[in-house]
Amino acid sequence: MSLKEEALKAHSQHKGKIKVESKIEVKDKDDLSIAYTPGVAEPCKEIDRDIDKVYEYTAKGNLVAIVSDGSAVLGLGNIGPEASLPVMEGKAVLFKEFAGVDAFPLCLDTQNVDEIVETVKRLAPTFGGINLEDISSPRCIEIETRLKEELDLPIFHDDQHGTAIVVLAGLINALKYTKKELDQTKVVVNGAGSAGIAIAKLLLSAGVKDVIMCDIFGILHPEEEQMNSIQAEMAEVTNKEQLTGDLASAMEGADVFIGVSAPDIVSQEMVASMADDAIIFAMANPVPEIRPDAAKEAGAVVVGTGRSDYANQINNVLAFPGIFRGALDVRATDINKEMKIAAAYAIANLISEDELAADYIIPDPFDKRVVSKVAAAVSKAAMESGIAQVK
Amino acid sequence: MSLKEEALKAHSQHKGKIKVESKIEVKDKDDLSIAYTPGVAEPCKEIDRDIDKVYEYTAKGNLVAIVSDGSAVLGLGNIGPEASLPVMEGKAVLFKEFAGVDAFPLCLDTQNVDEIVETVKRLAPTFGGINLEDISSPRCIEIETRLKEELDLPIFHDDQHGTAIVVLAGLINALKYTKKELDQTKVVVNGAGSAGIAIAKLLLSAGVKDVIMCDIFGILHPEEEQMNSIQAEMAEVTNKEQLTGDLASAMEGADVFIGVSAPDIVSQEMVASMADDAIIFAMANPVPEIRPDAAKEAGAVVVGTGRSDYANQINNVLAFPGIFRGALDVRATDINKEMKIAAAYAIANLISEDELAADYIIPDPFDKRVVSKVAAAVSKAAMESGIAQVK
Repeated sequence: MSLKEEALKAHSQHKGKIKVESKIEVKDKDDLSIAYTPGVAEPCKEIDRDIDKVYEYTAKGNLVAIVSDGSAVLGLGNIGPEASLPVMEGKAVLFKEFAGVDAFPLCLDTQNVDEIVETVKRLAPTFGGINLEDISSPRCIEIETRLKEELDLPIFHDDQHGTAIVVLAGLINALKYTKKELDQTKVVVNGAGSAGIAIAKLLLSAGVKDVIMCDIFGILHPEEEQMNSIQAEMAEVTNKEQLTGDLASAMEGADVFIGVSAPDIVSQEMVASMADDAIIFAMANPVPEIRPDAAKEAGAVVVGTGRSDYANQINNVLAFPGIFRGALDVRATDINKEMKIAAAYAIANLISEDELAADYIIPDPFDKRVVSKVAAAVSKAAMESGIAQVK
Repeated sequence: MSLKEEALKAHSQHKGKIKVESKIEVKDKDDLSIAYTPGVAEPCKEIDRDIDKVYEYTAKGNLVAIVSDGSAVLGLGNIGPEASLPVMEGKAVLFKEFAGVDAFPLCLDTQNVDEIVETVKRLAPTFGGINLEDISSPRCIEIETRLKEELDLPIFHDDQHGTAIVVLAGLINALKYTKKELDQTKVVVNGAGSAGIAIAKLLLSAGVKDVIMCDIFGILHPEEEQMNSIQAEMAEVTNKEQLTGDLASAMEGADVFIGVSAPDIVSQEMVASMADDAIIFAMANPVPEIRPDAAKEAGAVVVGTGRSDYANQINNVLAFPGIFRGALDVRATDINKEMKIAAAYAIANLISEDELAADYIIPDPFDKRVVSKVAAAVSKAAMESGIAQVK
């Protein structure tokens, strides 16, 4: 059976991938009088008196809404809410299987930023956290920013930050392997969409001092006229040497190339122009910016991609389950940069110095230690940064 | 342990009553490539080509949203979205345990009619049906009416129609027991809120010709000035003798009293003034309009209440699980009056003529036959009325 046939069969066999189950039994009138009327009035009254008790008497504290408008789904583009449901159900499955989080897909019949923001705000009472997914850029950045301002819940756009955290984890280990320091590294990020911007921001937060961003028009620079407003903001905090030009000129002498862009746009010549012991994360999917073997032939020492059939897969599933597990466990009111950086170090530190190798800078997604280590680090960072509501 | 202590313990033990589970395993990279990328793109593409396939490849077809704004919760009043969550989770448990329906509580942070309607419309892609719950009257009627017009999904406000269906079921059997006919019966409905109005409408649809509605100000009559707009509409289609006066005068000579009103407002004298073999459904909770023993002493032959500790409990759980099971099974685009009447007869017909007794006109909620019989009747009625999308 082909992958396509297998996938369709697996999705139709049980009609989708998620179900809602009861935690308690209702087999007779006594059970009914506890789970429903009249007994259910007691937790209602407790919560009415003290709203924090909603975390004690309901499922809210372990419930994450996976919210999408279906506008930028995988590589499929704007396929709308119904067609994006299998992806969101899949995400819910991963939340449950990897981290025991109850996650529920909500695919919205609107692609208007104001309407998405107000809808999520109206849904907030039921949920302990919000995972935004597959919303097109730059709308996703505005939606996330506004929700973070307006709600005291962990809000996380995985396509931005999940990728950024795993990139930072990989970079920490790749630099350890090549004996370079984060703050002395020149990093080129190609693709100034939401993922690229999130990567650049997280690297800057983590201590990288020299980040250069590129997009189709070339290097982001304050005087570049083809930038959108978010790219213009990034041009102010990156490119410290005020370079202009194309991707090839940006890559000259760089230590690290991070691509969230398009297939086959990095040549062997461009890799060869980089500093010694170059690091390449070529994450365009399914065809990377440059094939790993070609990059190595041209001098790269560590190569990662987004694919599971190459070494060093930059896979979001290393981050988001533990991030939410850690945030929910201490009822964090946000997912801040301290938590993201802590998650990246927790992922990186799973690989000991002895184990570290050019082809093993990122743990396997099925490494059983990942979620608990990430969750613990995220909880700790939330407490230390003062946004945990319980300890 | 008191009921209160037991209820609080049951609700805190597992933090709430519902969880989200996976229908498929993800134990290795092969599973991941089916449940998530790249395999998940296949069902997405199928649904993108033919939106009806969302019922084949996702959980939508068995998923019901339980939507509340927390404005009229049990007898607790307007306690808001968080405090109403235990009730909605309880409802989800009943949906699952009684009918295998995946139901998910969504308690909204708005009590504005327009905002509730637009929020539910935006959520519609994910769900196969919408159960409205504990929304105050008359807002709930407007919300349901608008959603039924604007969405091709089964929409059901259980507080209105669940009660009405079980009342009709009980009435069918009580009339059989007292050897009276539906179309020759005079019925007084006291309490012209959303439940009372739904009861009156369903009785009229089912063939009762003489329905008199009362509220605090007395009998609903076209010239009564204290009515709201929905009560005014009801005054046009009820009270065929154009009676005026109070509840006591309405009840003179009536065959049936149905109360969804207030405790202890029916006296023995009022029951004694009714026709022979009077039927009383006194559903005010927890204290009925008149106690069953007092009603019987005054001449009533069949008495039902909303309580599980008296005979003939008018319990919504007899209706809503089978209603949604039947509607989802044939992908009905609505829940129409034909389906509601069919559900009532299915419930009534579970009691054979031999079994029928003054204290046994309504089946037990834990009677295992209820859901399948109701579901089959509802599916059939949907098909016969032309609103089923599959057979």
